[in-house]
Amino acid sequence: MSIDRRMSIDMDIEEFRRHGHEVVDWMADFLRDIEKLPVKSRAKPGEIIGQLPEKPPQEGEPFEAIFQDFQRIVVPGMTHWQHPSFFAYFPANSSRPSVLGEMLTAALGAQCMIWQTSPAAAELEERMMQWLRGMLGLPSGWDGVIQDSASSATLCSILTAREQVSGYGVNARGFDAGGRLVVYGSAETHSSIEKAVKIAGLGAESLRKVPVDGSYAMVPEKLQEAIREDRRRGNTPCCVVATLGTTGSTAVDPLAEIGEVCRKHRVWLHVDAALAGSALVLPEMRWMIEGIDAVDTFVFNPHKWMFTNFDCSAYFVKDRDALVRTFEIHPEYLKTREGRRVNDYRDWGVPLGRRFRALKLWFVLRTFGVQGIRETIRSHMEMARSVVERIEASPDFELLAPAPLNTVCFRYRPQGISDPDELNDLNARLLEAVNDTGKAFFTHTKLDGKYTIRFVVGQTYVSQRHVDQGWKLIAETAAKL
Amino acid sequence: MSIDRRMSIDMDIEEFRRHGHEVVDWMADFLRDIEKLPVKSRAKPGEIIGQLPEKPPQEGEPFEAIFQDFQRIVVPGMTHWQHPSFFAYFPANSSRPSVLGEMLTAALGAQCMIWQTSPAAAELEERMMQWLRGMLGLPSGWDGVIQDSASSATLCSILTAREQVSGYGVNARGFDAGGRLVVYGSAETHSSIEKAVKIAGLGAESLRKVPVDGSYAMVPEKLQEAIREDRRRGNTPCCVVATLGTTGSTAVDPLAEIGEVCRKHRVWLHVDAALAGSALVLPEMRWMIEGIDAVDTFVFNPHKWMFTNFDCSAYFVKDRDALVRTFEIHPEYLKTREGRRVNDYRDWGVPLGRRFRALKLWFVLRTFGVQGIRETIRSHMEMARSVVERIEASPDFELLAPAPLNTVCFRYRPQGISDPDELNDLNARLLEAVNDTGKAFFTHTKLDGKYTIRFVVGQTYVSQRHVDQGWKLIAETAAKL
Repeated sequence: MSIDRRMSIDMDIEEFRRHGHEVVDWMADFLRDIEKLPVKSRAKPGEIIGQLPEKPPQEGEPFEAIFQDFQRIVVPGMTHWQHPSFFAYFPANSSRPSVLGEMLTAALGAQCMIWQTSPAAAELEERMMQWLRGMLGLPSGWDGVIQDSASSATLCSILTAREQVSGYGVNARGFDAGGRLVVYGSAETHSSIEKAVKIAGLGAESLRKVPVDGSYAMVPEKLQEAIREDRRRGNTPCCVVATLGTTGSTAVDPLAEIGEVCRKHRVWLHVDAALAGSALVLPEMRWMIEGIDAVDTFVFNPHKWMFTNFDCSAYFVKDRDALVRTFEIHPEYLKTREGRRVNDYRDWGVPLGRRFRALKLWFVLRTFGVQGIRETIRSHMEMARSVVERIEASPDFELLAPAPLNTVCFRYRPQGISDPDELNDLNARLLEAVNDTGKAFFTHTKLDGKYTIRFVVGQTYVSQRHVDQGWKLIAETAAKL
Repeated sequence: MSIDRRMSIDMDIEEFRRHGHEVVDWMADFLRDIEKLPVKSRAKPGEIIGQLPEKPPQEGEPFEAIFQDFQRIVVPGMTHWQHPSFFAYFPANSSRPSVLGEMLTAALGAQCMIWQTSPAAAELEERMMQWLRGMLGLPSGWDGVIQDSASSATLCSILTAREQVSGYGVNARGFDAGGRLVVYGSAETHSSIEKAVKIAGLGAESLRKVPVDGSYAMVPEKLQEAIREDRRRGNTPCCVVATLGTTGSTAVDPLAEIGEVCRKHRVWLHVDAALAGSALVLPEMRWMIEGIDAVDTFVFNPHKWMFTNFDCSAYFVKDRDALVRTFEIHPEYLKTREGRRVNDYRDWGVPLGRRFRALKLWFVLRTFGVQGIRETIRSHMEMARSVVERIEASPDFELLAPAPLNTVCFRYRPQGISDPDELNDLNARLLEAVNDTGKAFFTHTKLDGKYTIRFVVGQTYVSQRHVDQGWKLIAETAAKL
């Protein structure tokens, strides 16, 4: 085939420019008008795939047709995480500068596995991790690296702990016939801990779910008992995972006491602060990391509550050599002349290939500034407090957990209903009815067996008006059940 | 603080629109003029980070300043993977429709962990995997899922194999005291296999590197011997990894024979076709997957050689239930009313959080069409063949491996030099001198101890002119050494 024909196969550069401008206008209109869309998609299973041909086209199609299908088929099938009335899960909050950063990352199209494959990506990542470390008040000697998610970072920590405790023996020879390597989390710990324990070959039976107190935080004495019991049985305590801001109710495990236990028993300590880490920019929230010096590794997600597009998870380690030694590989085709003078982040996590994620973070931190980030996060926490006040003032609603951050756990409990199953059923119906309006989106958990509605205030552009409307929707829907 | 003040913290929507248009124009200019930039960044270690302040700004900064710094500091520090004279590693080739797709993904900002969190993302992913499966000629009963990288997909496969062979016992209880679980790859297998074997707790000593033949492909008889030897020793063969297109030289392991061995000995078979998978769109390349029915899992990267932005790795499995059972977790906060009627992709891999990666793939496949993809890949292979012909015609250059795909392995061997170390040193110097011109970028490997320069033709917009210039640069630089 001729090379000239080749050049016309997809899209020439001026077509790209023209479509790029159309796409930007669509993006701006979409973000401006997003409140008019239902938050949770109304699509039924199979509704989207049924609109997509079973086979790809043989000949290329014009961009106009593709873009129309995107708007017609895809957009109505999306749940809108950037809608200010998205109060579900934890947020994955983006922001306008972050989106601009992602656009440039896409155009550069760099694969940032090692320093040589894009020095600016490696060094910007190093600097951004230093910025975040300082903003959160983490120890200045720590190193940081961007991972895709807290699940992956937690896996990295558990693997590093496994290698530390086995003298890098599992990496080399697999598991010995000796006792178990045990991991400890609270009963409210995230499901990713169990997943990581399985992946690392420890087995789910080697995960101890330490009891929690009335605020759903880990009881350090119970942790100590569990560690002692394991030692008695000939098992080896490998890693403790403390959570700042559990997924269920944002309970904050008492880090100082847990750190004392870990020090005393010489056990690796990982902190999962996936959501709550962002709140550490507020000096008044630093109580959460009292005792941080006992911690070995720490993860939080700027993609959750620091206005940076998913994915961007910040993983900090006290001992970078232990991390790198756990993951390093040295094939000839990746050797470079810079050697150890630079950070080759391929050895700081599971995947070899890496996106240029530091760029959007740089755009966000500079556009907001530290003060802007503080003000925004503080405003979210104030709005969450306003929800708490509404609930406390409502005889038909009941708060089910403390709300130390941005997440309020509650249920509807109208006078006269006290049967646990009936209440659970009622609240499940309330949640569905609210979500089906499309006006707001909430999700649930169970606390002490109670069906719990979670009201999470963390979308970048949420304001008191959205929170008030969200509460009103719940109260009015409940009254009609 | 007042909510109105909050709204002005970062960037209002019309500012976003204006900057978005500026960014699009920059992107189009950048991609249009990219050939004027050095391919490999000339930055020295520390040069970029030295230009970035040690602390983040307290107050927000205007976008103009940030965007200027991006152009001034970041761009010169990038190695340009989208430069048509990028002949290094394997490509991470993007394309214009893919970039447009990434822009929309960034604006939607959806976290696609489960169906409910964005039905269109889940169902478009399902359909795109079906399209790719058909395009590559993979068995119609297989299911597919997008992963971030082939490393992660291979880890998934080895973990699933581990669970299959242990009756899901490692997930539950960790490793028993019995023999090793052994993984087999060729001596040329990718470093990610060793990494996965370590992560999965098997230990690097449980990886057998089966000898290769003169074309650097695995010798099936040697694989069979290794499996038999392990069984004799009481070990359990767990997984064989066959590579289509090794990273060193794109050697193609003989799948039909390897499949026979795996069938006979009942061993799980994973195929790493990270690069070469894309070439299966060409009917004339389907010989590589003769015997595919014996395969359990298969990965290839549209982000390598199918014009789709990194990251986008397509992982196919024969038995989706085995995959899901290996990874599934069921916390209350992720339960939805759709249950098993939909694909919740969180259970199809390691991380919980997932980007909307299917969108860019849809844009690429529709814009190129199957024929456009075929023509482009075929043209890359033809251009690689033109490099082979140049080398064969040059008495001072030596081909070091067959070139069945788009990668040519060779070295400079001028008349009169035959000392192995001297030749290795000479070629290392040649590579550095060529790369330091900034006009093209090549990387190396070692084959049989010989320092090998790799000429990889796979950038989306590469043409014969770039390949000719690349070759001329090598020949002229060599003559001057």
